Amino acid sequence: MDPGRVFSSGRVFYGLMSGSARESGVERMTNLQSIRSPAAHAERSQEADHPSSQVALFGADQPLKLDCGVDLSPFQIAYQTYGELNADHSNAILICHALTLDQHVANVHPITGKPGWWENMVGPNLPFDTKSYFIICANVIGGCMGSTGPASTNPATGKVWGLDFPVVTIPDMVRAQAMLLDRLGIATLFCVIGGSMGGMQALQWTAAYPERVFSALAIACSTRHSAQNIAFHELGRQAVMADPEWHNGRYADEGTRPHRGLAVARMAAHITYLSDAALHRKFGRRMQDRELPTFSFDADFQVESYLRYQGSSFVERFDANSYLYLTRAMDYFDIAADHDGVLAQAFRGIKTRFCVVSFTSDWLFPTSESRALVHALNASSARVSFAEIETDRGHDAFLLDVPEFYDIARAFLQSAGKARGLSKAGD
Amino acid sequence: MDPGRVFSSGRVFYGLMSGSARESGVERMTNLQSIRSPAAHAERSQEADHPSSQVALFGADQPLKLDCGVDLSPFQIAYQTYGELNADHSNAILICHALTLDQHVANVHPITGKPGWWENMVGPNLPFDTKSYFIICANVIGGCMGSTGPASTNPATGKVWGLDFPVVTIPDMVRAQAMLLDRLGIATLFCVIGGSMGGMQALQWTAAYPERVFSALAIACSTRHSAQNIAFHELGRQAVMADPEWHNGRYADEGTRPHRGLAVARMAAHITYLSDAALHRKFGRRMQDRELPTFSFDADFQVESYLRYQGSSFVERFDANSYLYLTRAMDYFDIAADHDGVLAQAFRGIKTRFCVVSFTSDWLFPTSESRALVHALNASSARVSFAEIETDRGHDAFLLDVPEFYDIARAFLQSAGKARGLSKAGD
Repeated sequence: MDPGRVFSSGRVFYGLMSGSARESGVERMTNLQSIRSPAAHAERSQEADHPSSQVALFGADQPLKLDCGVDLSPFQIAYQTYGELNADHSNAILICHALTLDQHVANVHPITGKPGWWENMVGPNLPFDTKSYFIICANVIGGCMGSTGPASTNPATGKVWGLDFPVVTIPDMVRAQAMLLDRLGIATLFCVIGGSMGGMQALQWTAAYPERVFSALAIACSTRHSAQNIAFHELGRQAVMADPEWHNGRYADEGTRPHRGLAVARMAAHITYLSDAALHRKFGRRMQDRELPTFSFDADFQVESYLRYQGSSFVERFDANSYLYLTRAMDYFDIAADHDGVLAQAFRGIKTRFCVVSFTSDWLFPTSESRALVHALNASSARVSFAEIETDRGHDAFLLDVPEFYDIARAFLQSAGKARGLSKAGD
Repeated sequence: MDPGRVFSSGRVFYGLMSGSARESGVERMTNLQSIRSPAAHAERSQEADHPSSQVALFGADQPLKLDCGVDLSPFQIAYQTYGELNADHSNAILICHALTLDQHVANVHPITGKPGWWENMVGPNLPFDTKSYFIICANVIGGCMGSTGPASTNPATGKVWGLDFPVVTIPDMVRAQAMLLDRLGIATLFCVIGGSMGGMQALQWTAAYPERVFSALAIACSTRHSAQNIAFHELGRQAVMADPEWHNGRYADEGTRPHRGLAVARMAAHITYLSDAALHRKFGRRMQDRELPTFSFDADFQVESYLRYQGSSFVERFDANSYLYLTRAMDYFDIAADHDGVLAQAFRGIKTRFCVVSFTSDWLFPTSESRALVHALNASSARVSFAEIETDRGHDAFLLDVPEFYDIARAFLQSAGKARGLSKAGD
């Protein structure tokens, strides 16, 4: 066997991409061995300090008090807005993004050039209707798209923070978002919305600032990260850290990037975002551009090609240290832990209207976790509606075209809008 | 934050190890960064060519005809036996081992010094009773414990095979085992037994040599690898290949080992061997030797420490290229594909008595796959009994203390032994 043949690169990939509009896309597949994309990396570095978004700067007088005990100062938050804030500032929706997403919800992404990740949800006459609502999405603290994080420049040293950046938590992210809302003059959110890590933030909003949240839509998430999910995150972190180009987190100083380790981490995570059934339906055991096996380590199967593509494309838009920090924040998340281990106590007396959504084939945040949340909300006498949506698309369903999900989201906002007295809520 | 603190190593690990007897074990946890074990590596290399097992050598006159078209010659098979072959050679059981296990079923492992992986099943008065049966287990072709594989020395070059070794399949493994049985004078197996990849081999035995197999016990396996399982394997392979110390498979020549990549691959695989419920029961969100989070990338959670230990201990006993080859063999496995896509045709007219066992919480080889096999066997009018065992222990259940499994295995062999006319079958 010719070892050269074993790693031939540049295979054509057909299949499912992230986001429904991209499900029929055709992309070049790159082997992880050959990932090099200096241009994209330069853009990525640029976005960390000087994002293609609006930026709120918080100076020495306004530190962000982190759970680890550090006062982070100065810091900045990069955010996008869609729609217009009404006169009494009562129509603001905060969308909280998931682990590897960002504030570019409904505009072209400045690095990838691809559409926003929720363009199917956010826009005129869409479920999150920009004709009715003022929609904000901020890059999380610890992220790498313009809010202060490990990829940002530490003003004290003039160098990239790297692992000198303090470990942040989901409550820290939410605390920063609250400071942004203060800055924008928004006392109360009409709704806070999020899926996955974004759902964790939405729930943390209701636990930390119940009086500031009129309604909350928590999708495919949990009030605490499970042992299996921590295990998958630890796997991803070890994959990054095992890459010699990680250099104990100082890769920016070294002029390298742990792109292989990060790609492996992404491949692992991506498997958890889909379901066995979806993988079977999309790919099964179908071969990639051939009838017979090559008897090699080529990507013989379509699912291999797809996964390699997911890994290699991710590293162009994401920072490896940021991946470590954000996965860590999710691992630490446990709302009940701050309330004597009793989840219902976190929501006692809350007035917020909740809608909790889960997907039947989501094994990362299974329905059982959403049910536990709903039970706790019921025990707190909170207003809550719960929808378990039948789909084989796994955790990623919240990003895909799932009409039942659209209908539920739209109906929940319309109902909450009426209660809030919004004039043309979603009509 | 002090980056030095982030990767402090040498944490104590409490928790579940592979195998029931080890569930209460206490082991030192090593961070993947610091995996170095030259002594064990030297032992490992030694085992590939000169194993601590019996060896059957096959010379130029007896090549192994591989599915990829290569005639492998010379080659060797390393094997262990337990019990005694009876006068009419009718009491032989072949145990087929899983992906990362080997022929050391019921004796101390020559590298790890730990007990055999099925000591709870194989021995006097145990379900696979060495007082009644002659039990054989051979390292698979492509393995690294003495049967010819990528870690063996290529006699044509005097160097380690590495990626020059031809890609092997499950049918190739079984073909080699059949040649070993010929050598041992065993025309017909009383039973072929295996779990996971071993179950694939057991099924392949019945499909390829139905007249040589009186009975077959196929545990936690499938007649073909699913898309999700291929995805997890591809992830593991990419983790290995992403390690610069892999050197395109030529690490032996370079005097290195891709130990970090292999450890990451093992971590990923290990998650799939357990169930969410088992991880929750064993570890939950419990911290490792502390009450509060460290706000670092230390192994704060017990499940992280456990996983790191699994990764780091694996690399001492396994060869990275062999891991690539054996995962590939599993990916390629698809019995129906050789029978016009109709699984039942693979077993038409078969006389073999089957027992198929699955575990409720096994998500790697879920019960649905065992049911599909049982349906195909029914459609072939084969004799088959099927047991789905209720347990939260996931895929690894077949290696652990599961009394229902013991009882089923024992009863199946006793029943088959009576039909075979074995004098003291399991009494």
